[in-house]
Amino acid sequence: MKFTRFTVNSEIHTGVVTDDAIKEIKGNLFGDWEYTGQTFSRSDVKLLAPLEPNQIIGIGANYVSNVEDLPSELPEIPVFFFKPTSSVIGPEEEIVIPAGIEQVKFESELAIVIGKEAKNVPEADVLDYVFGYTVGNDVTAPQYFHQDGHWTIGKSFDTFTPLGPVIETEIDPLNVKVEAKLNDVEKQNSATELMIIPIRKMVSYLTTVMTLKPGDVILTGSPVGAELVGAGDVIECGIKEVGTLRNTFTAARENAKTY
Amino acid sequence: MKFTRFTVNSEIHTGVVTDDAIKEIKGNLFGDWEYTGQTFSRSDVKLLAPLEPNQIIGIGANYVSNVEDLPSELPEIPVFFFKPTSSVIGPEEEIVIPAGIEQVKFESELAIVIGKEAKNVPEADVLDYVFGYTVGNDVTAPQYFHQDGHWTIGKSFDTFTPLGPVIETEIDPLNVKVEAKLNDVEKQNSATELMIIPIRKMVSYLTTVMTLKPGDVILTGSPVGAELVGAGDVIECGIKEVGTLRNTFTAARENAKTY
Repeated sequence: MKFTRFTVNSEIHTGVVTDDAIKEIKGNLFGDWEYTGQTFSRSDVKLLAPLEPNQIIGIGANYVSNVEDLPSELPEIPVFFFKPTSSVIGPEEEIVIPAGIEQVKFESELAIVIGKEAKNVPEADVLDYVFGYTVGNDVTAPQYFHQDGHWTIGKSFDTFTPLGPVIETEIDPLNVKVEAKLNDVEKQNSATELMIIPIRKMVSYLTTVMTLKPGDVILTGSPVGAELVGAGDVIECGIKEVGTLRNTFTAARENAKTY
Repeated sequence: MKFTRFTVNSEIHTGVVTDDAIKEIKGNLFGDWEYTGQTFSRSDVKLLAPLEPNQIIGIGANYVSNVEDLPSELPEIPVFFFKPTSSVIGPEEEIVIPAGIEQVKFESELAIVIGKEAKNVPEADVLDYVFGYTVGNDVTAPQYFHQDGHWTIGKSFDTFTPLGPVIETEIDPLNVKVEAKLNDVEKQNSATELMIIPIRKMVSYLTTVMTLKPGDVILTGSPVGAELVGAGDVIECGIKEVGTLRNTFTAARENAKTY
């Protein structure tokens, strides 16, 4: 099932995507919801990020190029980071390159949407706590990484977390490919089996630390091939079974930091 | 004005603290609210964290010991980090030391509660966007800091962000002292003028990066004197004009990580 959020005449709706239509629903995505009976044509709506995340958690450098490069031992403390929910945008919205820099990095990722409160969840049960999957672009300005390793500012700018186009509830996350096309040229294309810390281990570990909540989004890392891009570039992050998340990079308006 | 959240017979209320009573209010703390007419005695209620934060942002190592140690030049990229909202607890709740380690660090801090959406706010206007101030304890397990400088896991455990006892809306944050007493012995006591990146600069900078939202909490750094403590220790973080936030450290139940 593919869940989406969208606007029609600037009003926000939630719906289920079916072939060429969107059937509106109401209620709690992670609890009880029902169809309203209203149906929209896909061409009449503007898609939004498919949810407003409760929190966004990312994992650092989590892919190898080839299966034989997978380490035999996992890092004792994985590199996790948070991104602010204020950085979320939807498909076709512009990613704004901050004033003062020319380029930022795209990072296409499989994004997990947590559906149930999760604490101390064993690896084998992790997928029971997942509501579904979407595509995320973990946009990053490495120029704003602190020299002591803190990534927060470089990952927190408004528009730096495109999500979408839908939340797909029925894929096998262990068996999909995460892709990115920059201006129509393929830059990333890796199976999720190339993750250093695989999904079940990643989420299980997180739940030994913190209680995950419905609406938490976990960005599971980006395949080899991400690169710096500039204003005017078009990035399409995609997972075949979920869809394509297309955004254009633009320069900040000049007055953004003039005071 | 002092705002608080509290339970009576496990039901959650919001209120305004007046001398020895709490007057219940309803509505949006950051918008329209009104008194319900109901009043509770302070002794009949259990205080909670005074808000459920939208997000929690912290700043690293932000105090010097003496005014003459303040650097003449500020760091180009301040060290910010996020803490998960799932780590919040209230006064008198137990801080749980994660299984496998014996000690964690307390860090008493002035916590800013944002009241209005804030983007590109000049330093001079910052305080207009602040709803009020509370006391925060940025509990930290440095054993879980990643060697490359990422602090996320070490600051994200459940119970690691006590907040309270109230949100005070009328203090001058540039002129208060941040204190901590460990088992009744003073460990921290510094005026906020000892902050390396002062509050107005800190929040203004953040708003050049991200849109701050009502309910965002900013932990403004901890004075010199924080130290490692263990199960049974009692920490009282305080700001005279806001109140005292008292919590006890306890060991994780043994079964927490046994799978």
